[in-house]
Amino acid sequence: MAFSPLIRQMVDALRGLPGVGPKTAQRMALHLLERDRPAAAHLAQALQAAIDGVGYCTRCRTLSETEICSLCSDPRRDDSLLCVLQSPADVWAVEQAGGYQGRYFVLKGHLSPLDGMGPEEIGVPALLDCLEGRAVTEVILATNPTVEGEATAHYIAGLLRPRGIKVSRIAHGVPLGGELEYIDGGTLAHALAGRTQIL
Amino acid sequence: MAFSPLIRQMVDALRGLPGVGPKTAQRMALHLLERDRPAAAHLAQALQAAIDGVGYCTRCRTLSETEICSLCSDPRRDDSLLCVLQSPADVWAVEQAGGYQGRYFVLKGHLSPLDGMGPEEIGVPALLDCLEGRAVTEVILATNPTVEGEATAHYIAGLLRPRGIKVSRIAHGVPLGGELEYIDGGTLAHALAGRTQIL
Ligand SMILES: [Zn+2]
Ligand SMILES: [Zn+2]
Repeated sequence: MAFSPLIRQMVDALRGLPGVGPKTAQRMALHLLERDRPAAAHLAQALQAAIDGVGYCTRCRTLSETEICSLCSDPRRDDSLLCVLQSPADVWAVEQAGGYQGRYFVLKGHLSPLDGMGPEEIGVPALLDCLEGRAVTEVILATNPTVEGEATAHYIAGLLRPRGIKVSRIAHGVPLGGELEYIDGGTLAHALAGRTQIL
Repeated sequence: MAFSPLIRQMVDALRGLPGVGPKTAQRMALHLLERDRPAAAHLAQALQAAIDGVGYCTRCRTLSETEICSLCSDPRRDDSLLCVLQSPADVWAVEQAGGYQGRYFVLKGHLSPLDGMGPEEIGVPALLDCLEGRAVTEVILATNPTVEGEATAHYIAGLLRPRGIKVSRIAHGVPLGGELEYIDGGTLAHALAGRTQIL
């Protein structure tokens, strides 16, 4: 085998990236060593800085390098809306979609009793704490449209019912631009059941 | 936008990897920060170690962390064969293919006068130097089967002719397992012209 130990180590480490197999890792290593060492140095530095500096917002629990993240500290956001999600990636997705101007709360995944992920583990008590003394009038449950995500949303809705807060669930339906024939049956059934009157 | 500066920097740095677009970089950053910080630390360390430690073999000019690479210093390899390639990636490809037991010499790409890449720039004088006082009896020109690779092979063959060394070119033809109808015409023409008698 033609790799020296340092190159082999580099190729192995690149395989730690999601979706990167042996051939891709090899191509990446070669590209960086042969054509772009500054990019490799920049990546090494940025990875280390992020590991050292990025933790979680103590308020909404998304990834943040400050104790309170920029979304929680932005005075222009609407304090009366709280969107509950399963991961920081979902916050990014909603922000990139645009249009939502309320606050967020990030659970640690979904309820999964068999994996030891109960309400405590996924952060439900922290969600309830975060509603105390705040002006939230509507909680939007935006957990994934999966069996586990639905169960988690249902469980949280039950806890919020006695508090007299409006609770909503993101709409299920056919994705924009999708063609009906390629959409799975469950989604289609939901879309039909949840039809809205237009005339 | 929901990224903190350190995360944005990390996403940008991941985009320095070949074939990684903004969505993939984002997914990689999130995966590393949320699920696999040890992998991120390992990658940061491996990149830095490779940048600092990997240079070029002074003999064959492939990537190496020692002055003479393991292929050049391996006493079991055949000194009489020298395979000339365009890049360290090609050395890896030939080694992984297996079967070749000679030595290597790596050019810096191919001749490209318009880009200022003349014989000097791609390392032709160094190739001639490396033949001096060595027991090479055959030089295998394994530059790419492209117009530029062919021209480079032809140029080097011309320089070697007066030296009385056997010079060969890798065979062109249909790839193993390929189906004729999907093979481009140039390759097919080469394969027909270069047919070998089997009976
Ligand atoms: Zn926050
Ligand atoms: Zn070498």
